[in-house]
Amino acid sequence: MPGMMDTILNLGLNDETTETLAKITGNERFSLDAHRRFIQMFGKIALSVNGQKFEEIIESHKKKLGVKQDVELNPQALRKIIQDFKELIRLDSGKRLPQDAWMQLEMAVEAVFRSWSNPRAVEYRRFYKIADDLGTAVTLQQMVFGNMGRDSGTGVAFTRNPSTGDRKLYGEYLRNAQGEDVVAGIRTPDSLDAMPPEIRLDLDRVSETLEQHFKEMQDFEFTVENMKLYLLQTRNGKRTAHAAVKIAVDMAGETLISREEAIARINPGDIDQLLHRTIDPKAHVKAIAKGLNASPGAASGIAVFDTDEAAKLGAKGDKVILVRPETTPEDIRGIIRAQGILTVRGGMTSHAAVVARGMGKAAVVGCSSIRLDPDNGYFKTSEGMIVKRGELITIDGSTGEVLLGTVPMIEPELTEDFRTLLGWADASRRLGVWANADTPEAAKKAKEFGAEGIGLCRTERMFNAPERLPIVREMIMAEDEDERREALRRLIPFQLSDFKEMFRLMAGKPVTVRLLDLPLHEFLPSAEEAVEEIENLRKRHAPASALETEARLLTKVHQLSEHNPMLGHRGCRLAITYPEIYEAQTEAIIRAAIETRREAGQTVRVLIMLPLISSANEMIYLRRHVEAAAERVFEEMEEKIDYKIGTMIETPRAALTAGELAKYADFFSFGTNDLTQTTYAFSRDDAEAKFMSRYLENKILTDSPFEVLDAQGVGRLISMANQEGRKANPKLEVGICGEHGGETKSVAFFHQAGLDYVSCSAYRIPVARIAAAQAAIATTKTMSTV
Amino acid sequence: MPGMMDTILNLGLNDETTETLAKITGNERFSLDAHRRFIQMFGKIALSVNGQKFEEIIESHKKKLGVKQDVELNPQALRKIIQDFKELIRLDSGKRLPQDAWMQLEMAVEAVFRSWSNPRAVEYRRFYKIADDLGTAVTLQQMVFGNMGRDSGTGVAFTRNPSTGDRKLYGEYLRNAQGEDVVAGIRTPDSLDAMPPEIRLDLDRVSETLEQHFKEMQDFEFTVENMKLYLLQTRNGKRTAHAAVKIAVDMAGETLISREEAIARINPGDIDQLLHRTIDPKAHVKAIAKGLNASPGAASGIAVFDTDEAAKLGAKGDKVILVRPETTPEDIRGIIRAQGILTVRGGMTSHAAVVARGMGKAAVVGCSSIRLDPDNGYFKTSEGMIVKRGELITIDGSTGEVLLGTVPMIEPELTEDFRTLLGWADASRRLGVWANADTPEAAKKAKEFGAEGIGLCRTERMFNAPERLPIVREMIMAEDEDERREALRRLIPFQLSDFKEMFRLMAGKPVTVRLLDLPLHEFLPSAEEAVEEIENLRKRHAPASALETEARLLTKVHQLSEHNPMLGHRGCRLAITYPEIYEAQTEAIIRAAIETRREAGQTVRVLIMLPLISSANEMIYLRRHVEAAAERVFEEMEEKIDYKIGTMIETPRAALTAGELAKYADFFSFGTNDLTQTTYAFSRDDAEAKFMSRYLENKILTDSPFEVLDAQGVGRLISMANQEGRKANPKLEVGICGEHGGETKSVAFFHQAGLDYVSCSAYRIPVARIAAAQAAIATTKTMSTV
Repeated sequence: MPGMMDTILNLGLNDETTETLAKITGNERFSLDAHRRFIQMFGKIALSVNGQKFEEIIESHKKKLGVKQDVELNPQALRKIIQDFKELIRLDSGKRLPQDAWMQLEMAVEAVFRSWSNPRAVEYRRFYKIADDLGTAVTLQQMVFGNMGRDSGTGVAFTRNPSTGDRKLYGEYLRNAQGEDVVAGIRTPDSLDAMPPEIRLDLDRVSETLEQHFKEMQDFEFTVENMKLYLLQTRNGKRTAHAAVKIAVDMAGETLISREEAIARINPGDIDQLLHRTIDPKAHVKAIAKGLNASPGAASGIAVFDTDEAAKLGAKGDKVILVRPETTPEDIRGIIRAQGILTVRGGMTSHAAVVARGMGKAAVVGCSSIRLDPDNGYFKTSEGMIVKRGELITIDGSTGEVLLGTVPMIEPELTEDFRTLLGWADASRRLGVWANADTPEAAKKAKEFGAEGIGLCRTERMFNAPERLPIVREMIMAEDEDERREALRRLIPFQLSDFKEMFRLMAGKPVTVRLLDLPLHEFLPSAEEAVEEIENLRKRHAPASALETEARLLTKVHQLSEHNPMLGHRGCRLAITYPEIYEAQTEAIIRAAIETRREAGQTVRVLIMLPLISSANEMIYLRRHVEAAAERVFEEMEEKIDYKIGTMIETPRAALTAGELAKYADFFSFGTNDLTQTTYAFSRDDAEAKFMSRYLENKILTDSPFEVLDAQGVGRLISMANQEGRKANPKLEVGICGEHGGETKSVAFFHQAGLDYVSCSAYRIPVARIAAAQAAIATTKTMSTV
Repeated sequence: MPGMMDTILNLGLNDETTETLAKITGNERFSLDAHRRFIQMFGKIALSVNGQKFEEIIESHKKKLGVKQDVELNPQALRKIIQDFKELIRLDSGKRLPQDAWMQLEMAVEAVFRSWSNPRAVEYRRFYKIADDLGTAVTLQQMVFGNMGRDSGTGVAFTRNPSTGDRKLYGEYLRNAQGEDVVAGIRTPDSLDAMPPEIRLDLDRVSETLEQHFKEMQDFEFTVENMKLYLLQTRNGKRTAHAAVKIAVDMAGETLISREEAIARINPGDIDQLLHRTIDPKAHVKAIAKGLNASPGAASGIAVFDTDEAAKLGAKGDKVILVRPETTPEDIRGIIRAQGILTVRGGMTSHAAVVARGMGKAAVVGCSSIRLDPDNGYFKTSEGMIVKRGELITIDGSTGEVLLGTVPMIEPELTEDFRTLLGWADASRRLGVWANADTPEAAKKAKEFGAEGIGLCRTERMFNAPERLPIVREMIMAEDEDERREALRRLIPFQLSDFKEMFRLMAGKPVTVRLLDLPLHEFLPSAEEAVEEIENLRKRHAPASALETEARLLTKVHQLSEHNPMLGHRGCRLAITYPEIYEAQTEAIIRAAIETRREAGQTVRVLIMLPLISSANEMIYLRRHVEAAAERVFEEMEEKIDYKIGTMIETPRAALTAGELAKYADFFSFGTNDLTQTTYAFSRDDAEAKFMSRYLENKILTDSPFEVLDAQGVGRLISMANQEGRKANPKLEVGICGEHGGETKSVAFFHQAGLDYVSCSAYRIPVARIAAAQAAIATTKTMSTV
């Protein structure tokens, strides 16, 4: 078990054996110092005496003698220290230091087992998600001494460079010292080149042997006792993501491991590091606040609290971090120009989080510990620090941290090795990897990262752009169907050009367009904003007609307000009330597809996706409207095009009735975020803000189900729906769109469940490619061992 | 097929056959009138000529002749009328009246089939939920004539009285007339006693034969032609709920049918009529507004817009209808004293609806067409009618109608026959019938109606009472766990007496207590109210400390606000954050149980139910806290008591992981309202306010899944959970609580799914008893025919 559990206790020393050791070695100071070290460590570990108190005793003796280094302590001082140590132990623990070696052993073993439950260990396991019932082990080992003189020493080595991955022994050596001295960092060690050359040769040979044996880069500790090399321990070495990729690809090249093994070695979660700018791990930085790590990457810029100002400064080329209570569609222009976004409210699916992930921009959201006062141009941290408009700050979207000033960063780089590895992964995987991309920019990025199609193109954006929003509002405020159709007609040209650009870019790859999902009130101002505007109009003595329009708007806002918008009048429900909305969208999509084929001479693969379906009847009803709209375009353009109509599976009922739904759907796409919300009855935003951390702390959940797919519940629905859907319709294509599509464990689940593809945001595509390959490799392995 | 489709067309008459008929009968006037009637009916039905125009022609001729009755028209006039009718048909339909009998037949048959799609028929089917693809039929029958003279006639009869159920032939007779004359109500018919006595004897004999044959009360039409009785048609007679019960019980007594058949005859939906005061169906009343029929029964009283006023007037004995925008827990004192509740906002699960159903009080909610101005003391209907405070109004909670003034009503009565029938039902059913009852009053009512236990006692009420709310708020505002525990401790005595009363009342029957489910913000004022209070305090120059307290409250309100409260921090999630809440509730429950046993010397069966569980880990965690709290009481009181801990199954995930959950649960209770909300991803309030009517109109849903359980989706989850839960824990008890427990089709489903009991509000218990018996009888039948 790696990490903090490997304390080494040199047992067996007592007053008597210390004297014996002094006689054998002819070095009284050495043996006394060994005894002193033993008591110090044993007292701390086995008898739980505060370690600081031992240090204080040593310090007081050094001061008395006027010396600075431990090695300057003479045998007489060491004897006094040993006496003081024993006294400290007696007072502090109420026990006597055992002289019997077996008793020492027993107590030490007990202490190790006890250490499994100390708070640090518990915290460590919680962080690394290590099971509590795994247990620990105790290793008994013969002692050798690196502090037997100048021909002795100790060191730590990596068989390859853990930062760069270079194939070159890398480590540190400390002459005339024990292992703890290196680990504790009391003396500064030399490089391995400072070792005696013959020992250094031994070390190279050992390194080679270790790699041949473990087929992995090793991190090992060694001691040299009188020019003889002893190995204390070895383990797989930790490495940066960059090094991990290089080492895996190199080892496959050296035929030390297979390509499949090389893929399996990569922790897909680390890949984010390679795709986003990160804070240099060597930099010593302290966070002033912490929020949710909503969109990975680090960014620095001046804090700006107003969207327009952020847009203006950003356009000039200034680096800006947009800091807002929360963001709305109207903040888009500021977000586009900003380096990163920091919000006080909102969870992992808040507007800011979703938009930032889609753009690959760093974002920290829900940073509720800061008090933001945008009007007076500052925010205040929980520790009372005030950050004013214009001050430089850095946000780390991978950790959720907010830092003052700028910090050293590491730029992302898609190395040749990484490309090689991704190529190997593609050869191994069965799952397709598609992208969630709403804009041509996102689609471009997705293609760069290897997307084989667009699995989710949300159309909300096409309603949200500044020149379109007024028309959308006309549509919402329409008194009757005719007025609504008229407004929708005026929106078609905008959508047409958006879709054409998307189709051209994807050049024959499938593009899945999800029809409007958001509730209409998302396109209106909030009630507070409307009330404020009415006040403003009154103060300015605006004409009665303007007031009346705003009052009508407010009435509409009230009419559309909902108790639980997530479960309200949105998705296909909106289209069942107003089928003309989906008809107009279909017209734009089909027209764009035909025009693209005509103009660019390329195939266009169109998939139209209906959101929030919960029954086959909804599907039948809307399919009829979509098909009728498509037919009208075919007739008018005297040309037909193939297209598919499918449904998202994002309500439990859709999954439970998938066999029926599949009769009317050409494809299924699991919307795992909403499906998780409804299966658990968790509103993601509310759960993350209110109780998720408590659930994780108490291990009621091992992972947030919004990050790692819940295989038992949500996954069961997915497997059922996949099987029953395919049984009813053997041509059914089945994928998932949702951020789970880019998460390792979840991708493994989707592979095993037998889906056709995963779709995730552009920056998660490499992760998905690796994870899909790992899942396929793991399955093959399992199958071949059965 | 009963109802509007059974138009009778006397075919075969034309100019020639009319003359022949005149010769045979020697009655020219009669044959001409038959011809006239035929043309009129054929023109209207087969050629779609507006029926009113025929009437106008007859009227003009009568006026010309100066006569008043049709029978006064002489042959000459009838000839002219026939000419005018033919001309009308030619002009209006562009077709000639066919003379050929076969052609007439063909056109008439076509017309009948066409009538299946006319708007009235479509509307009728929608209302009665008759499938569109069922189709209709045409019957050809030999003609006889009731208008052949004074020894002829026509009539309608019921074999028993359809209003009272009395076993006595009941009907009407019209001398020298055809069937249409009775149906159309043009002439006023006599009672059956006006028939020639010998024919009346025949009629009694026929009535007996019909009942013996159909084993059902018959509604039949007959014609007497020259003293000979002919039957035109017979069908099962419609009857009042009261008559239905009496007839069923009587027929079983007469051994005409079995007791099982008697039970099967009852439409459980009609039973509401027997349990609630209803508006006299004979009264001619017009609604001034219509809302949701939230709680059945009709009530009259003066409109009062203020809770305190309603409470005061009600306490004096005045009859009051409390009219509010919506209700909150603070309105309870007004609701208790009011005859009924009318709200402008809110759906079928709004506070007003739930409270009213629980109290068996009439309520109309979500009556959004009225504009309420409580401050100025009036409301205004959509037609501009103004109803002021103090004016008499009537609400009908069974239909959702609001009426002006008082109207004649029928008082409910639990007749002896009904008791007999319920007794038979109890002997037939397998499902237990328990009650949802939060208060001793409701529990009393439930016992009266035959509840075998309490399946759901919500504890929210115990936090909501006026003297407790301030302590609840202290608990919410607590700075730390100690403060919270202290406030909870002070709430225990209140809960203790509530539980003791409940246990005593139920005298050994099981009582299922659901621990707190509501989110905490439900116990605080709204943000608007808090802001207003701060304004008020400022205006009154209140001390700074009062202002600060209110400001703290507002901050808390903001902190607790949620995007989707239904999916938020409520139920077991709240208790995982603050386990002390459930611990305090458990202490009160267990203490009350032991004290009741000691004081009343009766057994107490306690079931503690955890709401909104979605994973076994939640169950394990909370079970531990509940058990620890119970153990502390056992120790302190030096006495133990048996109790069970179970879970509601109201999230899809709980159902999907029921096999795991059942290991830690003694019982399951399906919360079908929330389970329906999450399975469909429908927020009930929002769905009912925004899109449910559209879904029903377009037959995307055949019933609201909140009224009739969705067997395909929600039902599948219930069946899975029931099977997998019992497999994992054979001792598991499984029931459902939720209004579906009192709905006929849903109860049939629960019976088939193999649950142990249903639990519903007191007033639905008789319905559930009948429905459960019907389901058992239907299953036995199916099994015996297999």
